[in-house]
Amino acid sequence: MNYFSSDFKLGILGGGQLGKMMLYDTRKFDIQTFVLDPSEEAPSRFGCNNFYRGSLMDFDTVYQFGKLVDLLTIEIENVNLDALDKLEDEGLPIFPSPKTLRLIQNKGKQKDLYVKNEIPTSKHLRFVGLDDLRESIAKDELDFPFVWKSAQFGYDGNGVKICRSALDLMKLPDVECLAEDLVPFKNELAVIVARSFSGEIKTYPVVEMEFHPEANQVEYVICPARIADAVAQKAKEVALKVSETFNHVGLLAVEMFQTETDEILVNEVAPRPHNSGHYSIEASYTSQFENHLRAILNLPLGNTESKVAGIMVNLVGEEGHTGQVYYENIDTIMAIDGVTPHIYGKRETRPFRKMGHVTIVNENMEEARKIAEEVKNSIRVISMT
Amino acid sequence: MNYFSSDFKLGILGGGQLGKMMLYDTRKFDIQTFVLDPSEEAPSRFGCNNFYRGSLMDFDTVYQFGKLVDLLTIEIENVNLDALDKLEDEGLPIFPSPKTLRLIQNKGKQKDLYVKNEIPTSKHLRFVGLDDLRESIAKDELDFPFVWKSAQFGYDGNGVKICRSALDLMKLPDVECLAEDLVPFKNELAVIVARSFSGEIKTYPVVEMEFHPEANQVEYVICPARIADAVAQKAKEVALKVSETFNHVGLLAVEMFQTETDEILVNEVAPRPHNSGHYSIEASYTSQFENHLRAILNLPLGNTESKVAGIMVNLVGEEGHTGQVYYENIDTIMAIDGVTPHIYGKRETRPFRKMGHVTIVNENMEEARKIAEEVKNSIRVISMT
Repeated sequence: MNYFSSDFKLGILGGGQLGKMMLYDTRKFDIQTFVLDPSEEAPSRFGCNNFYRGSLMDFDTVYQFGKLVDLLTIEIENVNLDALDKLEDEGLPIFPSPKTLRLIQNKGKQKDLYVKNEIPTSKHLRFVGLDDLRESIAKDELDFPFVWKSAQFGYDGNGVKICRSALDLMKLPDVECLAEDLVPFKNELAVIVARSFSGEIKTYPVVEMEFHPEANQVEYVICPARIADAVAQKAKEVALKVSETFNHVGLLAVEMFQTETDEILVNEVAPRPHNSGHYSIEASYTSQFENHLRAILNLPLGNTESKVAGIMVNLVGEEGHTGQVYYENIDTIMAIDGVTPHIYGKRETRPFRKMGHVTIVNENMEEARKIAEEVKNSIRVISMT
Repeated sequence: MNYFSSDFKLGILGGGQLGKMMLYDTRKFDIQTFVLDPSEEAPSRFGCNNFYRGSLMDFDTVYQFGKLVDLLTIEIENVNLDALDKLEDEGLPIFPSPKTLRLIQNKGKQKDLYVKNEIPTSKHLRFVGLDDLRESIAKDELDFPFVWKSAQFGYDGNGVKICRSALDLMKLPDVECLAEDLVPFKNELAVIVARSFSGEIKTYPVVEMEFHPEANQVEYVICPARIADAVAQKAKEVALKVSETFNHVGLLAVEMFQTETDEILVNEVAPRPHNSGHYSIEASYTSQFENHLRAILNLPLGNTESKVAGIMVNLVGEEGHTGQVYYENIDTIMAIDGVTPHIYGKRETRPFRKMGHVTIVNENMEEARKIAEEVKNSIRVISMT
């Protein structure tokens, strides 16, 4: 297959920041791209060859879009899978496949699959709705505390809640859901696995999410994770087993907990480039975005090792700020060696909206970590006064 | 000034591969871009916010384009300078300035400037045309061999000829030109200097052009150059002096010869991202393209040091091949660790047309050099059969 400056057309469902960063590499390889996104302000509307505005959940829209391209991929899981099934039946290559997406879209099915395949994960119970869950508590099958998760359409902390008492149930939506054991953990880790159509597999180094001690929010994604080699090795093995289970083509980001006793428990997966791999643009020999393309196009995978230590800081909208965005002190952080801001291209900021990220690379991890804190304390995503 | 996701508009004159690679970074920073290029197939037509087709040499076209933007830069020197003068008079910031461009567009003026500023360069004579040059030979003011250069519009070896006898004069065009001493040299070196509006200056490491022993063509650009520290230091000092002379804002690529006696002689300059800096996308902390943007936008300059050794191989069209391009064995080279092809996005190949480049990065320079040769011997830019 000839992809480079050819008639080949790659379709991407979703035009957010993940798609936008993937487009840097389709441009680098001069691969024609078609992007579908519901927003006319989508970050990917530039950099693709053709941008289409339309719903990712609408059967006809997704189906018609699929008919325009030679291969289809996604940058977001929540897309109309029936349309993908039909397109696949009609011979269109789709990576990740609708089958893989269907397993991942529903977190209940995802967890069942881990259990079935003896992949370590926290204990869980599935419920069709809130009444079902309440009944389980009444019957003493489920005890507080537990982690409530919406089975579908959760995103970035949306659709997840720690329930410590009946009070916490009050605000939950009545949707298909699951309850997971609340497992105390030392570290949240992630491993991105790239797997090509031909079955070639490479893993990125284990990364560590460092949490803010009080806010309990991920502050930094750190590569490589500052953990013992044996733990890192175990995390990679688990990630590879998860990858095998899903039989995906493209990237699979596997999020895991390192428990207090150094067990590795799989939390959840994403079958696409992932926030935990953004550091790879500057730190890795081959970025996650390039390897996603290589994998789905069945090209040889690139080296997933790092040139230097990498830390990523998310740029989210400040509380109390809504409107035309302003990146306060961005010039201050750009004056520091090895600091690269990525601005996703959203004109309007809102509290906690993901507006960009900053990568810090350095030969020395401790130095990188110090700079990351300086970056975090300097830049603010606010609205114009 | 607020550039990020704002109403600020950057204009770029020229939409070739240099502009295309610059756009990766305008996208990364979400800076609005307007691009002007004569070709509707220009590599930069995607990735910019607005693409305009028109002549870069036409006063009205360039002037009207300039009125659309808040700041203007170039990716090619051959643009209408009268239009830039008028735009600058009217208050538009233009970097590099038309004054700098005027000095550089004419290689005769460029050389005079080196002499005037005591910058080491080979001896030269200027001529208004061929008759003038012939007369100089007749008067014994000029001896064979010498290097003939067209004063204006030379590009990639075009407009340069080594003249060893009167026979070599036969095919020369009758244009303003200069004759330079043919100086035997050990190495051709280059240093890219970034200089921001505020006067902050950084230099990239000295790179070396390795020539094919028979074909006398640049085969590899190697960073860092494999030369003595003292020579590298001298090359950087000369480059800085050249930078000061031109008083440029943005990048200045300074091409130099290292003579057999380790003198450094300035050959010529380009006031923009340059082929000799393409390795920086993968090897440097901050790419030349990002630093060009930082410099013209008066943002702090990024770190110009390298993470790893970098070598660049140009991809030019094979002799005997014209038509729809095909990159033979591109998958073979992509299987090698640290190898990244850049495809410029020209559908049609022609003999010796610059179609792309490949970067090889490695912790070890010797290993990188071996891989570069493997790359060079594998990939071929041919036309579809």
